[in-house]
Amino acid sequence: MKTRVLSGLAMVPLLALVYLGGYPLLALCVIIAVIGIKEFYDGFNAMGIKPCHLIAYASVFVLYLINAAAPGNFQMICAWLAGSIMISSLYMFKTTERTPADAMATMVGIIYVIFFSFHVVLVDQTYPVMIWMVLLTAFCTDIFAYFSGYFFGKHKLCPTLSPKKTIEGAVGGTLGTVICSGIFGYFVVPEIWWQCLIMGFVAAIFSQFGDLTASAYKRKMGIKDYGNLIPGHGGIMDRFDSVLFTAPVIYYYIALVLN
Amino acid sequence: MKTRVLSGLAMVPLLALVYLGGYPLLALCVIIAVIGIKEFYDGFNAMGIKPCHLIAYASVFVLYLINAAAPGNFQMICAWLAGSIMISSLYMFKTTERTPADAMATMVGIIYVIFFSFHVVLVDQTYPVMIWMVLLTAFCTDIFAYFSGYFFGKHKLCPTLSPKKTIEGAVGGTLGTVICSGIFGYFVVPEIWWQCLIMGFVAAIFSQFGDLTASAYKRKMGIKDYGNLIPGHGGIMDRFDSVLFTAPVIYYYIALVLN
Repeated sequence: MKTRVLSGLAMVPLLALVYLGGYPLLALCVIIAVIGIKEFYDGFNAMGIKPCHLIAYASVFVLYLINAAAPGNFQMICAWLAGSIMISSLYMFKTTERTPADAMATMVGIIYVIFFSFHVVLVDQTYPVMIWMVLLTAFCTDIFAYFSGYFFGKHKLCPTLSPKKTIEGAVGGTLGTVICSGIFGYFVVPEIWWQCLIMGFVAAIFSQFGDLTASAYKRKMGIKDYGNLIPGHGGIMDRFDSVLFTAPVIYYYIALVLN
Repeated sequence: MKTRVLSGLAMVPLLALVYLGGYPLLALCVIIAVIGIKEFYDGFNAMGIKPCHLIAYASVFVLYLINAAAPGNFQMICAWLAGSIMISSLYMFKTTERTPADAMATMVGIIYVIFFSFHVVLVDQTYPVMIWMVLLTAFCTDIFAYFSGYFFGKHKLCPTLSPKKTIEGAVGGTLGTVICSGIFGYFVVPEIWWQCLIMGFVAAIFSQFGDLTASAYKRKMGIKDYGNLIPGHGGIMDRFDSVLFTAPVIYYYIALVLN
């Protein structure tokens, strides 16, 4: 518990990078994508599946190069995605050594880790202050779900996947996040405070999906944590599993509903 | 051989749909996506992996709905993609019945079959006549590779994956396609005929990647053909495996290089 709190404090400087936005945040996202890929693929190794790290790292490089050359060009992002998936397919041509599972895990890593985390950059480029909504919805849901579950938890949510989670926790996590999002909206972006309520609601649900998705992968990989980069907190992927899902939700809400 | 030729002739009416473009072609793409998903997922079933058909069919529906509401909106296409992948993740929450492989196969089907084939529609909406380049590069590569291999084939290309393919076939397929693309360009789009040479070259290579990708999946699935929809030709996925790769190549060349 002490390690966990101390490590938690050690993460505070990260918030400075988020506050700065722009290049520092972009650098943080690249690091999260690279370490995230390593952790995710190492998890697959534990179950005998061998995705190709090199293709994924090259894919990170190309995506951020495209972003530097033509920020917010979704046609190029789709081209990047199609290209990455095609190149990953080539990986299974050595049929004697590799299986479709190796190629498929490579593809899923590229989309789940690299493409999803890239939406943090997209939010920062479109509506910088909303980056806080990405983090707020990811972390508030966790905290409120934990305490609502602790005090009121009676009915199990999905015992085989995540035995400690309760329906009361899920409801409390969602409610708490909606309230915090409303408060954030009221003080920071008063002109759209009620939109923040909706965003908070949707993102809180997807935040829990993100958490459970990571749990589902880890359970089948037979690992408890993705890594031990942050003592007491596991790896990057354990900490940011919800962010991977809240970032696209917040981004597309901003891009398609607010605009 | 006789069945093969007769069935080949039976496919000629399909060319009429391609010639018409617009809604008839769109309908054809929806049908290819739906049958393609069925064949691809049935192949996974043969190796004990159970992707979710329902999510993929819903995903086809939403993609073509988005295309009707906002044609060529790549931001929405990315939102569709992120959403489809997130929803597919939910599929593995029932850990007692399902594995990450089931969810991952669902995701790969959505990208490989639905997203890739959708580029045929995108080409038709952007530069209709270029739809012929998608088909020409896919089918010429096949035919020229077959005959070059037949007459000159000496060195095996990838014996474990596709034992009959030769390096001479691959080179001949590429060369023949470049020449045909140049002829097509000279007569149909003379203002960009030399761009057709480049497109033909790149698409011919990816056409062979598409063919080998389908072979790699089938080999590991332990099936010879994806289906028997077209007697003597296998299923939709056997016929259009190269188109799945040439369509994105031609589309992004048009969208990013020509424009």
